[in-house]
Amino acid sequence: MKTNQEELETLIELIALHTELYKDNISNIHPYDIAMSLLKLRELNSDEYVKVIKKIPHDLFAEVLSELPDYVQEETADLLSVKKLADIASKMDTDDAATLIQNISEENEEISQHILKTFNDEDKELIEQLIAYEEDEAGSYMQAELFSANITEHIGTAIKRLKYLKESGEVDNIWHVHLVNDKKKYIGSIGLEDLIIFEHELKFEDISLDKHRTFFVNHKTDIKDVVDMVTNYNLTSVPVVDNYGRLIGRITSDDIYDIIQETATEQIFNLAGVNDEAEQEENMFEIGKTRAIWLGLNLLTAIAASIVIGLFDTTIQSLVALAILMPIVASMGGNAGTQTLTVTVRQMALGDIEGADAKKTIIKEVLISLANGFIFATLIGIVSYFWFNIPMLGLVIAISMIINLVSAGFFGSIIPLVLQKAGVDPAIGSTVLLTTITDIVGFFSFLGLATLILL
Amino acid sequence: MKTNQEELETLIELIALHTELYKDNISNIHPYDIAMSLLKLRELNSDEYVKVIKKIPHDLFAEVLSELPDYVQEETADLLSVKKLADIASKMDTDDAATLIQNISEENEEISQHILKTFNDEDKELIEQLIAYEEDEAGSYMQAELFSANITEHIGTAIKRLKYLKESGEVDNIWHVHLVNDKKKYIGSIGLEDLIIFEHELKFEDISLDKHRTFFVNHKTDIKDVVDMVTNYNLTSVPVVDNYGRLIGRITSDDIYDIIQETATEQIFNLAGVNDEAEQEENMFEIGKTRAIWLGLNLLTAIAASIVIGLFDTTIQSLVALAILMPIVASMGGNAGTQTLTVTVRQMALGDIEGADAKKTIIKEVLISLANGFIFATLIGIVSYFWFNIPMLGLVIAISMIINLVSAGFFGSIIPLVLQKAGVDPAIGSTVLLTTITDIVGFFSFLGLATLILL
Repeated sequence: MKTNQEELETLIELIALHTELYKDNISNIHPYDIAMSLLKLRELNSDEYVKVIKKIPHDLFAEVLSELPDYVQEETADLLSVKKLADIASKMDTDDAATLIQNISEENEEISQHILKTFNDEDKELIEQLIAYEEDEAGSYMQAELFSANITEHIGTAIKRLKYLKESGEVDNIWHVHLVNDKKKYIGSIGLEDLIIFEHELKFEDISLDKHRTFFVNHKTDIKDVVDMVTNYNLTSVPVVDNYGRLIGRITSDDIYDIIQETATEQIFNLAGVNDEAEQEENMFEIGKTRAIWLGLNLLTAIAASIVIGLFDTTIQSLVALAILMPIVASMGGNAGTQTLTVTVRQMALGDIEGADAKKTIIKEVLISLANGFIFATLIGIVSYFWFNIPMLGLVIAISMIINLVSAGFFGSIIPLVLQKAGVDPAIGSTVLLTTITDIVGFFSFLGLATLILL
Repeated sequence: MKTNQEELETLIELIALHTELYKDNISNIHPYDIAMSLLKLRELNSDEYVKVIKKIPHDLFAEVLSELPDYVQEETADLLSVKKLADIASKMDTDDAATLIQNISEENEEISQHILKTFNDEDKELIEQLIAYEEDEAGSYMQAELFSANITEHIGTAIKRLKYLKESGEVDNIWHVHLVNDKKKYIGSIGLEDLIIFEHELKFEDISLDKHRTFFVNHKTDIKDVVDMVTNYNLTSVPVVDNYGRLIGRITSDDIYDIIQETATEQIFNLAGVNDEAEQEENMFEIGKTRAIWLGLNLLTAIAASIVIGLFDTTIQSLVALAILMPIVASMGGNAGTQTLTVTVRQMALGDIEGADAKKTIIKEVLISLANGFIFATLIGIVSYFWFNIPMLGLVIAISMIINLVSAGFFGSIIPLVLQKAGVDPAIGSTVLLTTITDIVGFFSFLGLATLILL
């Protein structure tokens, strides 16, 4: 087991070594690994961390900083000079620079404005546009760096231009040449694998493009639709156009990986009553606060369920077995409902359930719940009978189990479908809504039937 | 609103049109879209579906079938002749052919063996190897089709070879040339964007490769580690080598998209007590059966919680307010615990929590729970006091709320960490385990304290 001090020294040496190797241009180390070492160093000893980051060359730090989480980017406003930050941002891809400047503005709006002013007018305008996009719009994920060519250009000339652009470091990770006309309108793309085999003397317009499937998205398209397009059609990157059809950027596979992960995390968290953005904060107070909001909502619904129980206080008083058994009915309903709800929400997100399938989904879920309802009604009926030796008690709990499981299947599928139709994210709040229903139906049906049949 | 008959006719026309366009080589339609139309047609009228798929040319159907779900691939064993199936499989990429043959073997082992026999020895061996991989091994996701070159080859020769391979349809979606030595050992890769700018007279070994970061995985590597590598280092594809370091395939970005989605779905479903593979079945009985297993487990734990309540039956009899309030404590514990559990499981999956962070995570979660415990203890204490007008009842529920929320935070974080350490998927079963604890702790602390303080 290493002590903290040893780990600290190892990390500092490691980062220094990576930095040296990078300067000598013989590094196989990925900036992501340096970022992870820095993150650990920052936790162990923030003073050493600040010393170390000041020593890393700006072009390397530009790549490393892009890999670090938002809260680390935010605090750089306090750690580095405006001049340094501006130089680092200028060495980033446009999308990463926009993210950095946006993060810095959360900490200190003034500094972010100073950094923006150091850019030339064109880049400044571009970054401001990127920052202005809503976070669910395709534009907020695109980078402006790409390789495009006018359809009247010769292929050989374009390849020479690519060589120059690569050597000057202006473009990287190029998989396609994107073709535009004189008005910059996007026409179509050719993969480098196709480009490489054409004669250099040809012009792009001489090539028949119809064999090359043309996919692109508008900059305002919902990012989830972009993910659907990319994953359904197995694309490596997708060009982004503005409202006039002009090519303004591209979204690449690494962005898609991140968006799929983030969307899934958001869904998992929302179903559990957790906010994904708050959980990324370093500040425990922020995390606790947003969780408390959902717990507060749950408190209200739990009180509502208790009020239902309170309606039957005399029944419970005359037969305490009811108090002992009633959580079983509620718990089974909550669990069966969560199964249905989770499957429905996820299949909707993956596009497996579309509008026309709604009715089919509800019928399927109710039938499954009905079948399982009969199984568990029988089981709990027998258990209750032997436990308390009251035959009708077994019948009461069995009937209420069927009622609650069927309503769990029905509401578990209909809640997300209705929320989606109302334009609300079906993962948010649906669990609380569902368990409120299964609790109330569970307690009401069990205690109500008991009042009718047993007393 | 379209009638089913109209929709049916539209679909058949649409598929026929796509097929014609494809034959004329002027189609911009992606096989995915044809697959989705076929899926709808199959649901509306399976006879028409069978008629239509028999008319689609084999090379197009090879692409379409790869996009269709497993259960549709399985049934093709009954719908098409072995000869047709073999011809279709031979037109697929190796990974898709292996999947198809594997799916057919689930329905009819004999037919799948017949199909395999039609392949030449080399392809047969390859497909058998692919089928033999475990589903969490990198090898089961790779395709054998790639573009490789011996390091002694001239770049110009390699480009000519690529041209030939592309025209003969042997390779597609090529982003890199993968370099090997005489023993087929993998040396490194060059992106086409770099290849395109080198002089054709050079040999690959003349190019300095150290600037080109070399990433590859062993065929037995856990697919989740492959996803981590690809997403952390923003790769478009990753070469796969065997135990001797020989290049045997590659995993591309479209596979990674699918794996990320599937892994997230598996996690969401497991947390809700649902099995992701069973849910993909068409057969409702299979879905209901696997859900029933989890519900059965939940029934046992719910009975355990009821036994705890039963210990305090005389207490409840003397104060029925306890029966009314007790579900609130259990419900809040369950919810707070689910918040913690979900965040911990997901952050572990994303690699945000590693071994050394375990202690930090538990401390963080307990502190958050403690803070929220005090808030909700105060609220429910006041509510209970005014509801039943028993001052000490407010105190009892407040204390048990704090106890249950803190244990929710503790167990919600420690359960997945311990499961992971024991080599068990932390998403499976952890929710049932957790809610058992929060139910029992909730009921026991509340009713126990009530017995001590109120009676």
